[in-house]
Amino acid sequence: MANNRKKRSRKSGMSPGTLVHIGDQKLENSKISLIQYSEAAVSETVADGIEQCAELVKGHKGVTWINIDGVHDVALMEKTGELFGIHSLVLEDIMNTEQRPKMEEHENFLFFSLKMLSLSGKNRSLALEQISMLLGNGLVITFQESPGDVFEPLRERIRQGKGRLRKQKADYLSYALLDAIVDNYFVILENFGDEIEELEESVLKSSGGETVSRIHAIKRKMLVLRRAAWPLRELVNNFEKCESPLLEKSTRIFLRDVYDHTIQIIDSVEVSREIIAGLLDMHLSSISNKTNEVMKVLTIMATIFIPLTFIAGVYGMNFEYMPELGWKWGYLAVMVFMLLAALGMLWYFRRKKWL
Amino acid sequence: MANNRKKRSRKSGMSPGTLVHIGDQKLENSKISLIQYSEAAVSETVADGIEQCAELVKGHKGVTWINIDGVHDVALMEKTGELFGIHSLVLEDIMNTEQRPKMEEHENFLFFSLKMLSLSGKNRSLALEQISMLLGNGLVITFQESPGDVFEPLRERIRQGKGRLRKQKADYLSYALLDAIVDNYFVILENFGDEIEELEESVLKSSGGETVSRIHAIKRKMLVLRRAAWPLRELVNNFEKCESPLLEKSTRIFLRDVYDHTIQIIDSVEVSREIIAGLLDMHLSSISNKTNEVMKVLTIMATIFIPLTFIAGVYGMNFEYMPELGWKWGYLAVMVFMLLAALGMLWYFRRKKWL
Amino acid sequence: MANNRKKRSRKSGMSPGTLVHIGDQKLENSKISLIQYSEAAVSETVADGIEQCAELVKGHKGVTWINIDGVHDVALMEKTGELFGIHSLVLEDIMNTEQRPKMEEHENFLFFSLKMLSLSGKNRSLALEQISMLLGNGLVITFQESPGDVFEPLRERIRQGKGRLRKQKADYLSYALLDAIVDNYFVILENFGDEIEELEESVLKSSGGETVSRIHAIKRKMLVLRRAAWPLRELVNNFEKCESPLLEKSTRIFLRDVYDHTIQIIDSVEVSREIIAGLLDMHLSSISNKTNEVMKVLTIMATIFIPLTFIAGVYGMNFEYMPELGWKWGYLAVMVFMLLAALGMLWYFRRKKWL
Amino acid sequence: MANNRKKRSRKSGMSPGTLVHIGDQKLENSKISLIQYSEAAVSETVADGIEQCAELVKGHKGVTWINIDGVHDVALMEKTGELFGIHSLVLEDIMNTEQRPKMEEHENFLFFSLKMLSLSGKNRSLALEQISMLLGNGLVITFQESPGDVFEPLRERIRQGKGRLRKQKADYLSYALLDAIVDNYFVILENFGDEIEELEESVLKSSGGETVSRIHAIKRKMLVLRRAAWPLRELVNNFEKCESPLLEKSTRIFLRDVYDHTIQIIDSVEVSREIIAGLLDMHLSSISNKTNEVMKVLTIMATIFIPLTFIAGVYGMNFEYMPELGWKWGYLAVMVFMLLAALGMLWYFRRKKWL
Amino acid sequence: MANNRKKRSRKSGMSPGTLVHIGDQKLENSKISLIQYSEAAVSETVADGIEQCAELVKGHKGVTWINIDGVHDVALMEKTGELFGIHSLVLEDIMNTEQRPKMEEHENFLFFSLKMLSLSGKNRSLALEQISMLLGNGLVITFQESPGDVFEPLRERIRQGKGRLRKQKADYLSYALLDAIVDNYFVILENFGDEIEELEESVLKSSGGETVSRIHAIKRKMLVLRRAAWPLRELVNNFEKCESPLLEKSTRIFLRDVYDHTIQIIDSVEVSREIIAGLLDMHLSSISNKTNEVMKVLTIMATIFIPLTFIAGVYGMNFEYMPELGWKWGYLAVMVFMLLAALGMLWYFRRKKWL
Repeated sequence: MANNRKKRSRKSGMSPGTLVHIGDQKLENSKISLIQYSEAAVSETVADGIEQCAELVKGHKGVTWINIDGVHDVALMEKTGELFGIHSLVLEDIMNTEQRPKMEEHENFLFFSLKMLSLSGKNRSLALEQISMLLGNGLVITFQESPGDVFEPLRERIRQGKGRLRKQKADYLSYALLDAIVDNYFVILENFGDEIEELEESVLKSSGGETVSRIHAIKRKMLVLRRAAWPLRELVNNFEKCESPLLEKSTRIFLRDVYDHTIQIIDSVEVSREIIAGLLDMHLSSISNKTNEVMKVLTIMATIFIPLTFIAGVYGMNFEYMPELGWKWGYLAVMVFMLLAALGMLWYFRRKKWL
Repeated sequence: MANNRKKRSRKSGMSPGTLVHIGDQKLENSKISLIQYSEAAVSETVADGIEQCAELVKGHKGVTWINIDGVHDVALMEKTGELFGIHSLVLEDIMNTEQRPKMEEHENFLFFSLKMLSLSGKNRSLALEQISMLLGNGLVITFQESPGDVFEPLRERIRQGKGRLRKQKADYLSYALLDAIVDNYFVILENFGDEIEELEESVLKSSGGETVSRIHAIKRKMLVLRRAAWPLRELVNNFEKCESPLLEKSTRIFLRDVYDHTIQIIDSVEVSREIIAGLLDMHLSSISNKTNEVMKVLTIMATIFIPLTFIAGVYGMNFEYMPELGWKWGYLAVMVFMLLAALGMLWYFRRKKWL
Repeated sequence: MANNRKKRSRKSGMSPGTLVHIGDQKLENSKISLIQYSEAAVSETVADGIEQCAELVKGHKGVTWINIDGVHDVALMEKTGELFGIHSLVLEDIMNTEQRPKMEEHENFLFFSLKMLSLSGKNRSLALEQISMLLGNGLVITFQESPGDVFEPLRERIRQGKGRLRKQKADYLSYALLDAIVDNYFVILENFGDEIEELEESVLKSSGGETVSRIHAIKRKMLVLRRAAWPLRELVNNFEKCESPLLEKSTRIFLRDVYDHTIQIIDSVEVSREIIAGLLDMHLSSISNKTNEVMKVLTIMATIFIPLTFIAGVYGMNFEYMPELGWKWGYLAVMVFMLLAALGMLWYFRRKKWL
Repeated sequence: MANNRKKRSRKSGMSPGTLVHIGDQKLENSKISLIQYSEAAVSETVADGIEQCAELVKGHKGVTWINIDGVHDVALMEKTGELFGIHSLVLEDIMNTEQRPKMEEHENFLFFSLKMLSLSGKNRSLALEQISMLLGNGLVITFQESPGDVFEPLRERIRQGKGRLRKQKADYLSYALLDAIVDNYFVILENFGDEIEELEESVLKSSGGETVSRIHAIKRKMLVLRRAAWPLRELVNNFEKCESPLLEKSTRIFLRDVYDHTIQIIDSVEVSREIIAGLLDMHLSSISNKTNEVMKVLTIMATIFIPLTFIAGVYGMNFEYMPELGWKWGYLAVMVFMLLAALGMLWYFRRKKWL
Repeated sequence: MANNRKKRSRKSGMSPGTLVHIGDQKLENSKISLIQYSEAAVSETVADGIEQCAELVKGHKGVTWINIDGVHDVALMEKTGELFGIHSLVLEDIMNTEQRPKMEEHENFLFFSLKMLSLSGKNRSLALEQISMLLGNGLVITFQESPGDVFEPLRERIRQGKGRLRKQKADYLSYALLDAIVDNYFVILENFGDEIEELEESVLKSSGGETVSRIHAIKRKMLVLRRAAWPLRELVNNFEKCESPLLEKSTRIFLRDVYDHTIQIIDSVEVSREIIAGLLDMHLSSISNKTNEVMKVLTIMATIFIPLTFIAGVYGMNFEYMPELGWKWGYLAVMVFMLLAALGMLWYFRRKKWL
């Protein structure tokens, strides 16, 4: 992994609640955007600073969604915490991008920390981005490490006003955001499924070291995915079960749906892990098989020709008194004998099912 | 798997409750059939549309079983949802054929989603078909992906009016449908059992790559079966435990019976998985054994003849002064020495238990 | 397994409660025997039919134990069910000899289904026989697949009237039957223990394929035993915990004793499974070791003699101008050189600890 | 294990509560010793029979500890049961030395059955001895299979009257006995720890079969230890939690301490098991490595000399028309060519990192 | 490990509560230092004896933190226990440095025992130091085995009076100490992460024995880390959940934060363990691959040249009547035939994908 990454260990020895960014800084300047909507209207703003957002929230009756790209800016974080009343431990969790996915109930908001997945580059390496989400009264604040996200279709739905979204409160928006992230896990899983199928086909054919390292690579990716997915179930379950007044009853049935999805994701991950474990066994078995076959070829060749070469060697000796050398049919007899010996060997190998 | 399959990822980014078919479309047009029965009478109808069904249901006092083959038709699904008051998330689950088996209680009906198994083709590949079932008041609606099913004996029992079925309410029909699906799992399991026994016999004999891939194949099939079977237990248990007025007390004892069956299925699957895991170990061990034997043959041949060939080589040298060459019994002496050396080697190998 | 076995899949599609025999028919005609005892008297009867038994039960004040050998006779089963008021699902479970061990409370009796083990034949293969037991008021009915059983000492104890048995009610008899079956598991386990010890000794010596298949065989037997033993614990626990008036308080302490035995059995099975798993590892490791040794012998021989043979080959060339051939001490020099080369090689292998 | 051992299967078919000794008889005659103490005084007696003990107990106000070495004497056991009111199932458990460690509450006493470990012989084999303990009112009875035990320091503490022991009741004595047995587990564990460290060092060096069998041996010992240790935790926990008036409140804090020790023992056992499992993997990997190296030596030697020998063979052919043989520099040219070929091979192997 | 280490077994047979130091004595003389602070002032003292500390504590209104380096001094421990009212079992736990991490509630204080980790030496071996902590009213006492610790930044924060620490009670100090220790685990984990990454890269390249032993070494280190980390979670959880009046409500939210960290640590450890397990598989597979390749080279060389050598040998025979030897083109024909045979072999190997 990246060497310029700011590591967890930086925090060691610091006072709790000290804001320190942990992880790669994926963006130079933080970017704040804001969407406000009610059933009737939508407005989108690219905010200059978080103060502007706080003001816009005050006057608004509908739902406000503030999205902040980039969590490395300590000053911005502190300001945000101050303006919206966020506990410094929560701010710390937002800036620590190596957080374990979790959901916490706080006095006036619910806090979610989870991972958004994407595949990048030619060798389809798995990239994790931490998404933090705060659900307050009529307000959702999302924090991302870098701009790109899986929320674009959601924004479109807000703009177009189709479906349920515009009629519901902030809790439904936070559900929809969760749903978008969880749905994206299936895309990743399908990609992995394809990769595993490719690997399965190649395992029996090739026996090169690259197969092993590819198996190892997908295994590691699965570990990363699993580590992101397992706590997700707990997170969604806690959300559904929580008794905060911020969560409307009508939203719970949708959360149950997301919950089913997280179980399905975990299921898929576990099945994939078993298949991958099987692949390695198959690979090892396949190498052993190949070694066995190579050995057979060698053994057959050596076993047939080594005795023959010995016989030829015997009649190549220069003893003065070797009666066979003078016989008229000596040469022919030896050649025929050699032929019979070779055929005998072949018959023996055939009986042993080596041929 | 099929390339024209509609994948789960299609849904990513869509509004929840949006009806999208996921999976292979196994059928061109949906087909609706309807059976209505009471203790006294039975009538079967092939319906033109779901509206006709809704009307038939209204007037009827007994039990109505509507079976819909094909779940890819969005318009039909929407109409069905509207006519029978089904939540859009349930419709979504019916159309998503990669659903995890589950049971849900809704206000006016119980929803079941599970997998029907079948073996197809020469290499007995395992095919999954999703069956969705709605149990309402006097009404059971089943959704299948394609026409063939395991319910034919059940239909026959309805027609003939033998046994308990015609005297009971809709909950008993839904139990009978579950039972038919679960019973069919045993057929699949027995098939797998036979396949495993075949494999066990072949493992010690052959050492080809095809054994490994066959083991891998049945392992994967087991994973699929297991993934279908495990949630089944929960499903049946939830059904038995649920307090819906739709479920008669007398049906519960039958559900306990199905529950025992699901446990037995899971038990069998786990035992089979252990046996299969053992097969791979056996296979690996068997290859190693064979390599060991091949090596022994090579080593014995080489160890006996290489020194002899060397000796023959020595007396094939063209030095002018090599006294042995002129001796009368030189040739004989060398031949006897070679014979003794060979016999010594054989004795050594025998003592080492290689022969 | 037997090919004439009636399989579980026969039932697929049948109405629940339909009586069908599943398993091997081990006996031509069913045999009914009956023992009636009180503290004062004992009488044994070989009954002509189940009707006779029902009559004998009516008048009797003590305990009646009816034993039926052979569960394949549908008519007999139906009659029995009718006479003693047994639910058709229970009869179905009795006739299905592939039942998972379980205990069920019914209105007027307790139902037990469990496995009796025995070892048969030269290769000590494990045979399972299903025992079903009904405990009613003053009545115990046992169903066996074939005549032989582990209850003979129990019958003797009833006849002789020694110990507690004759003074107690039917629940104590059912306990005693359970105890006899569970105690017999220890006999089987000891047998397996001996077999495993034999295997342990042979693993390091031989490396043949038969070791692997023997390990695999005992592993499978262990799986069968385990599948019979695990649910037993639950069964005994449920019996001890059940609040049926059929179970006297004084019997519970004895059930706790049986419960301890079942735990001990499970413990032993798990330990044995671990040892067997270790055996396979040992075997694999031992084969690798042997291959390694074979390779060493080959390598040493080849490495010493191949270069020597080459040298001999060089001086066997027929070039006209090869000055060494004419030297007086050429032959001796070459021989000495070869000897030194061989000794050098031997020293090298000794340093490498190959010799 | 010993062949004269009385096996568990002896009991199969016997009436429950029948006293039968199971295990090796380690002692000819049972030996009964008795210690009586109060804060003021101590007296030690070697009793002639259990009747004498019963009398001594009656008059005494302090604590009496009766220790019986040898549990094979049925008459003694029956007498003891009668005199102190012990249930026949408990007596059975005492005489069955293959009992699983457990604690049982009875009306007037608490019953403990556990294993005392020791290492014996040169190859440090693990010996188990079953200790049964009864805690009654002012009375502790311990049953051992053979005389030697880990209680000697405890007896010394009673005699010297130092520390808490003499001031406390019988429950504290039973705690102290438990503690002595549990503490001794650490001695065994440290011994095993040393053995594992030795093994770790030897695994990478030697590759002989004896390493595998040593790993297997310590694995088995660990299984035995684990089987003795796991139920111990439950036993101590049950003791601490039990509400018997025999257990003083002040003793509970000491039991918590023993409980912590049992957890630590289990922890150590599990860690050791993981290390041992790793050893086998290391061993296998190490053998494979060695085979690989042996193969390389063979391959290098063979690959260099086989082609050279062929060339020498070509010029050893006796064709009449072989122009090279007549050339003046033919011999030299061939020798130089051979040298270059050999160097080329060496360069190739070096590039492949085989040298 | 160190041979002069005082082992756990020393305690075997001793009276409970007897103070005995177990572990390495890492320090000659114990060192006592004391920090007293309130919101207004801080004072640091290096105490001559524990009596001085007790006196200083009495008069003070703020928080006192006593740190004792070195736990081998029985007299000091006894004195400390007497002065601050610590139960002898707790003192025993403090002096036994092989304690399992735990938290205990006592009447007037909370007792914590946990491990502080550090990496030492060139090969980054993992060193464990036991930290015991007592939280009393306005008082925290910490016991360390040796002077160096991870608390220096904390002391600095106390001195400078920044942040929350100086304003809070003793429970916050104990939280801060826990937090410092737990945070340090991340430093260790990152180090291990780097080591694993190095290993991953080297596994595919080298196949030497040192890779196996490095994998084994890090595996062992992980076991040690895991054994220290797992109980930590329980410890922190118990602390958070405990109802002692010593724990302020405001501190609990910080404890939840530490709890999240411990879960993250356990998560990381488990993932690392899986990766390491995968490494060994990769390594084994990689050795097999290499052996396979070595075998191929050998087989190709031998298979091509052994038959050719045989042919050369045949025409090196000295039979008087060998017509081919006299042919003009005999030599050329044989050479061409040999070339063709070699090419044929090469073609065969290419078709087999060995080249």
